[in-house]
Amino acid sequence: MTLTGHNYIAGETSAEGIELFYSVDPRTKSRGEQAFHSAAKSEVARAAEAALVAHQQMRGTSSARIADLLDEIAAQIGALGDELLHTADRETGLGLPRLTGERDRTTGQMRAFAELLREGSYLRAIINSGQPTIRQMQFPVGPVAIFAASNFPFAFAVAGGDSASALAAGCPIVVKAHPGHPATSELFAQAMTAAVAAQGFPAGTFSMLQGAGIDVGQWLVAHEAIEAVGFTGSLRGGRAIFDAAAARPRPIPVYAEMGSINPVVITQAALAARGDAIADGLVGSVTLGSGQFCTNPGLILLEDSAASQAFIRSVSAKMEAAPAGVLLNEAVAAGLESTVSQTASNPQIELLTGGEPTAGEAFCYRNTVLQTRAAAIRAHSGLQTEHFGPVTLFVLCDDAQDLHATISALEGNLTSTLHAEADEAVGDTLSLLREKAGRVIWNDFPTGVAVVPAMQHGGPYPATTAPATTSVGTNAIYRFMRPIAFQNVPDALLPAPLQDANPLGILRLVDGEYSQAPLG
Amino acid sequence: MTLTGHNYIAGETSAEGIELFYSVDPRTKSRGEQAFHSAAKSEVARAAEAALVAHQQMRGTSSARIADLLDEIAAQIGALGDELLHTADRETGLGLPRLTGERDRTTGQMRAFAELLREGSYLRAIINSGQPTIRQMQFPVGPVAIFAASNFPFAFAVAGGDSASALAAGCPIVVKAHPGHPATSELFAQAMTAAVAAQGFPAGTFSMLQGAGIDVGQWLVAHEAIEAVGFTGSLRGGRAIFDAAAARPRPIPVYAEMGSINPVVITQAALAARGDAIADGLVGSVTLGSGQFCTNPGLILLEDSAASQAFIRSVSAKMEAAPAGVLLNEAVAAGLESTVSQTASNPQIELLTGGEPTAGEAFCYRNTVLQTRAAAIRAHSGLQTEHFGPVTLFVLCDDAQDLHATISALEGNLTSTLHAEADEAVGDTLSLLREKAGRVIWNDFPTGVAVVPAMQHGGPYPATTAPATTSVGTNAIYRFMRPIAFQNVPDALLPAPLQDANPLGILRLVDGEYSQAPLG
Repeated sequence: MTLTGHNYIAGETSAEGIELFYSVDPRTKSRGEQAFHSAAKSEVARAAEAALVAHQQMRGTSSARIADLLDEIAAQIGALGDELLHTADRETGLGLPRLTGERDRTTGQMRAFAELLREGSYLRAIINSGQPTIRQMQFPVGPVAIFAASNFPFAFAVAGGDSASALAAGCPIVVKAHPGHPATSELFAQAMTAAVAAQGFPAGTFSMLQGAGIDVGQWLVAHEAIEAVGFTGSLRGGRAIFDAAAARPRPIPVYAEMGSINPVVITQAALAARGDAIADGLVGSVTLGSGQFCTNPGLILLEDSAASQAFIRSVSAKMEAAPAGVLLNEAVAAGLESTVSQTASNPQIELLTGGEPTAGEAFCYRNTVLQTRAAAIRAHSGLQTEHFGPVTLFVLCDDAQDLHATISALEGNLTSTLHAEADEAVGDTLSLLREKAGRVIWNDFPTGVAVVPAMQHGGPYPATTAPATTSVGTNAIYRFMRPIAFQNVPDALLPAPLQDANPLGILRLVDGEYSQAPLG
Repeated sequence: MTLTGHNYIAGETSAEGIELFYSVDPRTKSRGEQAFHSAAKSEVARAAEAALVAHQQMRGTSSARIADLLDEIAAQIGALGDELLHTADRETGLGLPRLTGERDRTTGQMRAFAELLREGSYLRAIINSGQPTIRQMQFPVGPVAIFAASNFPFAFAVAGGDSASALAAGCPIVVKAHPGHPATSELFAQAMTAAVAAQGFPAGTFSMLQGAGIDVGQWLVAHEAIEAVGFTGSLRGGRAIFDAAAARPRPIPVYAEMGSINPVVITQAALAARGDAIADGLVGSVTLGSGQFCTNPGLILLEDSAASQAFIRSVSAKMEAAPAGVLLNEAVAAGLESTVSQTASNPQIELLTGGEPTAGEAFCYRNTVLQTRAAAIRAHSGLQTEHFGPVTLFVLCDDAQDLHATISALEGNLTSTLHAEADEAVGDTLSLLREKAGRVIWNDFPTGVAVVPAMQHGGPYPATTAPATTSVGTNAIYRFMRPIAFQNVPDALLPAPLQDANPLGILRLVDGEYSQAPLG
């Protein structure tokens, strides 16, 4: 494929912006040849307006047609071939094995939503016969703005989970690409644009805007045509988008996933039974993807004991021995250096290993282990700051009460984990951990998010701005739908999923009973 | 029952505030004898903190126990007897027949949620077996602040739909009572307090705060312990609460239902076939409850014709002939006079009848009909202001194109209505109306909201701040719940609804199939 460095707006490329930026290879810090144009305000408006026109044209489009579009996108991504992998590897340093797996996940997500649409029960059709007859189902909210993440250049980016779920809902999308991987983004934009055209959808169904700074995103969120926002990124970035959306004359919802420190509690019995295995698992989880996962285990809580101290020494040694991975880009490297320095400057914090960038030409930071006491976590909320990289912080608790008080003082997280033995009385600990997260994990590690309907990838603020929703799994679609009820509307004017005959044969809740049967 | 004029905080009465206010009988403008204490900031904090303690104590409470609480509340409300009706009638002027019906609706809502809880599928249990096994269900979010409305002193007030759905979700509530009916609110607080005690729930499960101004509400929304807000009232009030919640260090969701102008389109064929019946229905709907419904039909769109003009004359005559109802209170009367004056001052607006308060001692406004052209609605967004009272505005359109352009220019509404004949080609009109509302009504009138699962009482901003949710019907519970997923958690540590044996026998989505069977 030929790169243009342009924005993709409703099927056309466009380069009105004067600001240029470039890819940087994080392994060598060398700049790519292709210049990319940050979108101009006029281009942002054009993309949003085209999405609104597409929304109006797509009204009444069947779930089956949208499913075909999602399958086509998956096929077009596949057709990008290995060029996609090599381009992304150059821009992110994530390596081909990881990127190959992530590509499968990305196309798999598209196909999973297609399957959901063809099955049909996701529409949550409800019918109450009687006088009046009320029938309700879910409808697309309209144009959605999506902010791509840096750390998943495929699965949470231009054609990632937010895009898949918004398109599946029937919403046109305008994606703000992440400036860390503009060439990768352009390849996806080409695939999406081709898929939209091949399936005969309105051109405004998809647009992608490049942008090195925050202007493009702020313009996009403020645009009147945008009805909802999906965001994956930092707390600072997510909160800025949330604030801008809430301050609009007509506020819109922001579904921001903003990372997490993912507390892990390990009991003494678990340490005794399988401390070495837990240490290996933990080191693997902390260093996976150079630690650049929103589910990275960043806070490990243990009761203080000789066994706990030996465990921490063992983890520190393994962390020190493990190779330091490449970081995504300069911004991540600088952010990591800054947040770890800030944490380490707290007199309550002990640095056990790492704590500085590696020598060498790559963006790279030493695997880092920090340690403190539980009381310090409760006293300094700044110690709950995410370190986006291969860093974890051990927290020694005096006893169970100290542990429980500290869990209670935690902010919201995507996940919380308990390592314990089956015969331990840990119900209270698990209940407390549950209050702080969207997913509770038992004797496992938080990295690795299964893309299944029961998955919940979300959690209380500051993990997300919308704890009742998920950004992974098929329920992610409900962020971009709203129910509409029809009162006494004649059959011929109803959408097919609500018609008496149930022509699509979908599961509906009819007068309190789930049924795929026709009415009456 | 004896009135105290105090706040009800976790089972105790409290009167630390120095600001006093009184009921006013809207029929006579005479002040009641009982002084009511606006809550002090310390009382707001105590209520919120007690709710948090209750939330911690209620963790793991079964749906069945919560259902018993809801039934008990319904019984305690019934035990208030006719004193409740007379007290509310003195404070609101709504009349005993309406209040009797509203009491039935209020206890009916409580019992409907109890039934939902006993049935159990509302928990949306999802299980994906395999490695890892992921199981998810809905959990209460924690303490909820609820703002009572003036116009439904029972059904959207201290024990109204927001309270019922939040308690059903398992959340403790702190209700900010509406200052228009403090005595009625206190009776409900007594019933709720008695029910909480009788069923052995933590005292902090329920608190009620009185308050004449905006301070109590602002303190409540800003309190760290509050996790979500339910609000029914004005756009100005709802937006202020929304802004305060979004500006918190930890933002929380606000589910505000802020009223609506509820556009109604009437075709020429419908006018020809049954113009008189539509006129009667419309006048009944506009004047019901003195027009003080959030679903009041405030904007009627017709193509200009001799028949339309005759219809408008007929509606105006009927409105003039209909008795003017009593308004709820001075604030409503002053607000109505101000908004109608503002609208009527627009040179594009013609006043056909009404437009002023009635003579006499009651808070009362003449039934009012206004008229304009479609182009004026598109040019002046101020003409979409709600007139909270017996007022409607006719909009004459040049043709179908003018009508469609005007519908497209409307803001969000709770409802939109089409009166047409079955053989007309009105699919496009209905599609446009659908985009603007949460409920689309055919040949019926928007006042009257069936409390059934398929009901959607919500809509795009400014009708609500959360278009994906409803404040009527059992789906209202999801405003106050969030999903939590469990990964590989052993059966004994799982909540009962997710255990292998399915001990509650509820419907669950297991590996893609809905089933009430045990696992495996």
